[in-house]
Amino acid sequence: MASVTDIFRNNPGKPKTVDGVYSEQEVRLANRNSGIILETLRHDVTPTGAHYLLTHFDVPALDEGSHRLTFGGGFEQPFDLSLDDIRALPQVTMPVTLECAGNGRARVSPRSHSMPWSVEAVGTSEWTGTPLRPLIERARPAQGTVDIVFTGADEGFDNGVRHFFGRSLTLDLIADLDVLLVHAMNGQPLLPQHGAPLRIVVPGWYGMASVKWLSRIEAIDTPYQGFQQVQTYRYRDHPEDEGRPVTAIRVKSLMIPPGIPDWLTRTRQVEPGSVEITGRAWAGKVPIARVEFGDGDTWQEAQLTPGSGPYAWSKWSVTWQATPGEHLLRCRATDAEGNTQPLEQRWDASGFGNNAAHCVAVFVPAEPA
Amino acid sequence: MASVTDIFRNNPGKPKTVDGVYSEQEVRLANRNSGIILETLRHDVTPTGAHYLLTHFDVPALDEGSHRLTFGGGFEQPFDLSLDDIRALPQVTMPVTLECAGNGRARVSPRSHSMPWSVEAVGTSEWTGTPLRPLIERARPAQGTVDIVFTGADEGFDNGVRHFFGRSLTLDLIADLDVLLVHAMNGQPLLPQHGAPLRIVVPGWYGMASVKWLSRIEAIDTPYQGFQQVQTYRYRDHPEDEGRPVTAIRVKSLMIPPGIPDWLTRTRQVEPGSVEITGRAWAGKVPIARVEFGDGDTWQEAQLTPGSGPYAWSKWSVTWQATPGEHLLRCRATDAEGNTQPLEQRWDASGFGNNAAHCVAVFVPAEPA
Repeated sequence: MASVTDIFRNNPGKPKTVDGVYSEQEVRLANRNSGIILETLRHDVTPTGAHYLLTHFDVPALDEGSHRLTFGGGFEQPFDLSLDDIRALPQVTMPVTLECAGNGRARVSPRSHSMPWSVEAVGTSEWTGTPLRPLIERARPAQGTVDIVFTGADEGFDNGVRHFFGRSLTLDLIADLDVLLVHAMNGQPLLPQHGAPLRIVVPGWYGMASVKWLSRIEAIDTPYQGFQQVQTYRYRDHPEDEGRPVTAIRVKSLMIPPGIPDWLTRTRQVEPGSVEITGRAWAGKVPIARVEFGDGDTWQEAQLTPGSGPYAWSKWSVTWQATPGEHLLRCRATDAEGNTQPLEQRWDASGFGNNAAHCVAVFVPAEPA
Repeated sequence: MASVTDIFRNNPGKPKTVDGVYSEQEVRLANRNSGIILETLRHDVTPTGAHYLLTHFDVPALDEGSHRLTFGGGFEQPFDLSLDDIRALPQVTMPVTLECAGNGRARVSPRSHSMPWSVEAVGTSEWTGTPLRPLIERARPAQGTVDIVFTGADEGFDNGVRHFFGRSLTLDLIADLDVLLVHAMNGQPLLPQHGAPLRIVVPGWYGMASVKWLSRIEAIDTPYQGFQQVQTYRYRDHPEDEGRPVTAIRVKSLMIPPGIPDWLTRTRQVEPGSVEITGRAWAGKVPIARVEFGDGDTWQEAQLTPGSGPYAWSKWSVTWQATPGEHLLRCRATDAEGNTQPLEQRWDASGFGNNAAHCVAVFVPAEPA
């Protein structure tokens, strides 16, 4: 066990994990961070507070009245904006499904020692703000600009490196992605833990790109080397692999577990007969082409209802004939580019991009209760 | 490992736990349920969504327009109420600190196999609704009424027993406690996961008494034997002990961890010098008399600011002189009845009522960074 001094001085690295058992630290992270409550998948927009939430460091105490967003560094026309300035710009409200890149981390073997998400790090909110691109153009990135860097007010250590949370996007990506400078969520001012008073939302990408508590936007002429850009959020085949950046959300689906739960195990009892099963599927900006629902090795096609915007999850539903006994129910989606969720998880050193089929174990008694 | 059938048929009981490592089931519960984010203790009212949330079964899908609350069973004047009826009654808004009875469960040894809370199952909200007592009087409990039973719409299994979540209070307790029939939280309609469209809040008691998704209130002439009243939420000296009911919240305090965190371990680095440390303390309806802040075995008295109502937490603050090295910071509160938080946790078979002092490990470097 690393001492407190070691953590901040000697970078002791991550402990090894053992399948099926979890460390105190992993449980503390699971207590602090929160996942969607699966049955709230019935709502097109996740109820505020049931949206997944991962906070790397601490929630900063920022004052909405005095907070300024600075466009600085290599911009030719640097300026800064108050919240009132931002609210006076053209406003857009966009439903966006966000997912944590580490969702499903606990389902790979061996798993990386970090936040032990199972399937619940996802949610859909209606985000309100102003498009970012016109502001970048107004600030005029200097010739030779390579990256635009977004820095939050949240500071801490990761792997012995002290830094403010920061991420970058290239100018090309900013031209392609509908990045929104956001001050409201579900029609209310941003909650402190969701980035108040200001954040970005990068639709279609995993959540790490959507920097919260946004304080500064800079243009730089060399590739950004921030911790959260180059030392984590990379797909790695082994721990020393330099890796490939985590970017767009992979195709995925979840079901609302049918029937009623056992409190401790969350397994389900379902009455025999016809059962309507619904869920959600998403793939970043790529439309969902199909969802299949499986009872053991028997698969059926689900009915699809597209989401309320290009970045919002689709709804799916099937009628399942529940027969007495134990069943392993699964769902898997395929996107319009032909990507299908795997049944078994691909391994990743950090547990990123896990999009294996969702599995729910149910028991059907012989007689209706 | 119990099979799915066993869980619903044969009641396999709870697995044993091992100190320092956690089961898959415990981590799944920690992912599903969510705790307060400690730095949001700076807010008198916990930001919506950062309040702790424990959901025994599933969040029911109730329709606010058609939902009715029935006063039935042994009432002489049974009736039922719509949400509009309830909103037309006298309205009260009350800040109340709620805590889960299982908060701190993970800190006892051996621990009970259940939701592995550390310290974070607490929060303060402003609850709006109408006082319950006049409605009970209007329904006229029949002579010989012993218990008033509150039943939610949430159904599931616990320990092999299928039931709707239900709790009871005696008529005497209803006369004593300021129970509120609640439809709004922090000025907004209740969120689905916090009991929409209707719940009770039992101020001063642990959270299990504040039944969510309230559907039915009954008067009965024998002591209520519901699962959540007699089979759990009892202080037990050993697993077979009949136990004593869990009721009022015990004196407790938390601090906002100072400095900045290490992401994985949540340990802290604090700059040397004077550090303002603040936190909260509460003891149900009993006022807080003092809070002490400890650096190792050296304790100092904190300044206290009473809460915004009799059931809302108090704020405390101290100035701490941070010297280079490792420190174990602690806080402990004493209530107006002379109860002080213990430094070591009392053991309870189910991990209820844990109110040991909050501990935060920090590292202070020799030089400011």
